[in-house]
Amino acid sequence: MSAYPPNPDTHSSGRLRVSLPSPFAMQAGGALTGAHVAVETWGELAADRGNAILLFTGLSASAHAAANEDDPSHGWWDDIVGPGKPIDTRRFFVICVNSLGSCFGSTGPGDPDPATGRPYDQSFPELRVEDIARASQAAVEHFGIEYLAATVGASLGGMTVLAHAALYPGRMRRLISISGALAPGAGAIGTRALQREIVGTALARGIPSVEQAMKWARKVGVLSYIGAALLEQRFARRRQPMLPGASGTHFEVESWLEHQADKFAHTFYPWAYWSISRAMDLFDFAALGVHADPVTVAAGLRLDQALVIGVHEDLLFPLVQQQEIARVLRAAGIDTELIEFRSPYGHDAFLVEPDLFGPVLNRFLGETERQFQGLGAGARL
Amino acid sequence: MSAYPPNPDTHSSGRLRVSLPSPFAMQAGGALTGAHVAVETWGELAADRGNAILLFTGLSASAHAAANEDDPSHGWWDDIVGPGKPIDTRRFFVICVNSLGSCFGSTGPGDPDPATGRPYDQSFPELRVEDIARASQAAVEHFGIEYLAATVGASLGGMTVLAHAALYPGRMRRLISISGALAPGAGAIGTRALQREIVGTALARGIPSVEQAMKWARKVGVLSYIGAALLEQRFARRRQPMLPGASGTHFEVESWLEHQADKFAHTFYPWAYWSISRAMDLFDFAALGVHADPVTVAAGLRLDQALVIGVHEDLLFPLVQQQEIARVLRAAGIDTELIEFRSPYGHDAFLVEPDLFGPVLNRFLGETERQFQGLGAGARL
Repeated sequence: MSAYPPNPDTHSSGRLRVSLPSPFAMQAGGALTGAHVAVETWGELAADRGNAILLFTGLSASAHAAANEDDPSHGWWDDIVGPGKPIDTRRFFVICVNSLGSCFGSTGPGDPDPATGRPYDQSFPELRVEDIARASQAAVEHFGIEYLAATVGASLGGMTVLAHAALYPGRMRRLISISGALAPGAGAIGTRALQREIVGTALARGIPSVEQAMKWARKVGVLSYIGAALLEQRFARRRQPMLPGASGTHFEVESWLEHQADKFAHTFYPWAYWSISRAMDLFDFAALGVHADPVTVAAGLRLDQALVIGVHEDLLFPLVQQQEIARVLRAAGIDTELIEFRSPYGHDAFLVEPDLFGPVLNRFLGETERQFQGLGAGARL
Repeated sequence: MSAYPPNPDTHSSGRLRVSLPSPFAMQAGGALTGAHVAVETWGELAADRGNAILLFTGLSASAHAAANEDDPSHGWWDDIVGPGKPIDTRRFFVICVNSLGSCFGSTGPGDPDPATGRPYDQSFPELRVEDIARASQAAVEHFGIEYLAATVGASLGGMTVLAHAALYPGRMRRLISISGALAPGAGAIGTRALQREIVGTALARGIPSVEQAMKWARKVGVLSYIGAALLEQRFARRRQPMLPGASGTHFEVESWLEHQADKFAHTFYPWAYWSISRAMDLFDFAALGVHADPVTVAAGLRLDQALVIGVHEDLLFPLVQQQEIARVLRAAGIDTELIEFRSPYGHDAFLVEPDLFGPVLNRFLGETERQFQGLGAGARL
């Protein structure tokens, strides 16, 4: 893959690097100097700059949501983003930003601290979801976009959508929050805390190896993302030759978990994982207001419409949390649609069930466009 | 607590140690010399020895299901077993056996191998659920009991009940399998394989420390036993002072998980955990027959009646597996009752919801007794 070129002169499909204001003040204190975010785009920005969609990612994803001119490889939402696809890039200009604090081109713990020349690692300022939202907004402003047609995000992205809306009220007409939360629950916190404990122990003491710790943490994650029903359907009790260093049985499900873990351990920077994981636990939509009341915060959002999507089988961001997002947005007077899917893929469903999510996203964004045209573009944008 | 005295002359409430036939041949090969099991009993064995119930435990429990004369401390099923309780020890003589391979008085990996004088550890013969069933039957025979009024078990015990019934057809009139399985599914296998990988790495290489590894494995377990809904109900997002070596947040749920893990790491012998965990993965009721057909195996059980209990929220032994046990028993012509509970405690429900389980167990065992009296005790036993 090519690098993300700094500030290229393009408003169309490709990769770019966007500098953040320097210093970039962080939500919980501290600041980054000379930071930037890696950005990918699809489609063409309209002359009136009114057709932009900002896409926030989950914990482990890069900005490469789909193939584009600079990187034709398959993206993590290739079935959703593209010409003629549910988020149709013949109509919309789609922007996806690698989260600040991550490790796929945006400034994060693996980058050199300008003050020392060595990686930030544990000295990276405490990351919050709000920082990810602000850094992403810098990409929006890079393109001179005043109003977004929509923001979209799933998992961590589903929370970032909410943080972004609260930080930039009136700057997006609609939002789509998928498998997110107003604030993560105790089950998700317990799971992520265990993952960070494993990785943090390795980072602090080198035992077990950091690679080993990242693999165990990922296995904990994978087992929390998808339900037993799917694992049963895919693997049941099929066996295969014993793996080296194995657990003493030799079932296919073990080998698949090992493969998932290995892939993750070789692509994700451990302190980046640690930082983003903690940011997720600490997110609390209600705390974005003065009175810690989510409805009051939501009342300040100035949205036309919201779409909230949840999955019954999601163990990490349970459906009840999606219902709560919808309840709060509605209580604040926002026209909110709640869609509840069933999928054995649980929390991962948005990544692997385009037939489920695609039509709903397409319809909602189509309505956006029709209503937009009905209102007269100039009048609003 | 007092030790388990070898072969005391008692048929009533207390602790005893029962020697196994020596050598004790293991299901998967190898044999134990001079092995024994730790046993506890409650109630009085009737003169005709027809009122005995054999209780199998989950992975981590001792034989101390309830207070008795030798050990008045609280047991793991104190609300279920006792005089006037759902398993009424004024009527029944209840026997509970610490699983062979465990570490609470029965021979297991932590005991010295007579051949070397050092703990067996990884050289303990491969353990199977069938071995646990056979070692428990030795306790039954110690009391001269030919026919059991019932066998009861949950989790691992729910599988052991099935193994025991297949190995000793006609030797029990009824069985109760709670949150068990004909064979564990891919989700449970994946979870336990990760736990064994963590503990096994520590045992093989000392990194992380074995205690640390046992704690992480237990946290993985606890998160798989109980659902997010219960954690949410108990802890939500309440915070507390930062723990040492913590994950970077400071939520109450983390502290509770740490406490659970600590307790387990200080009571359970790591190789015993490893061995029993693997035995669970390898259990396959169908494999007890020649044709790998569970209904054929079930047809050989010679049972009067069976009770199968499952919990909707159980993530580790999903309800569908309880339905499958009931389906197979019914297909084999056994009068089988299936009870489906709802409980936020998921797989742990049998331990903490006596109000749910107690009445059903009591009614089923009461029917047993009534039908037994109707038939005339001598006729059958």
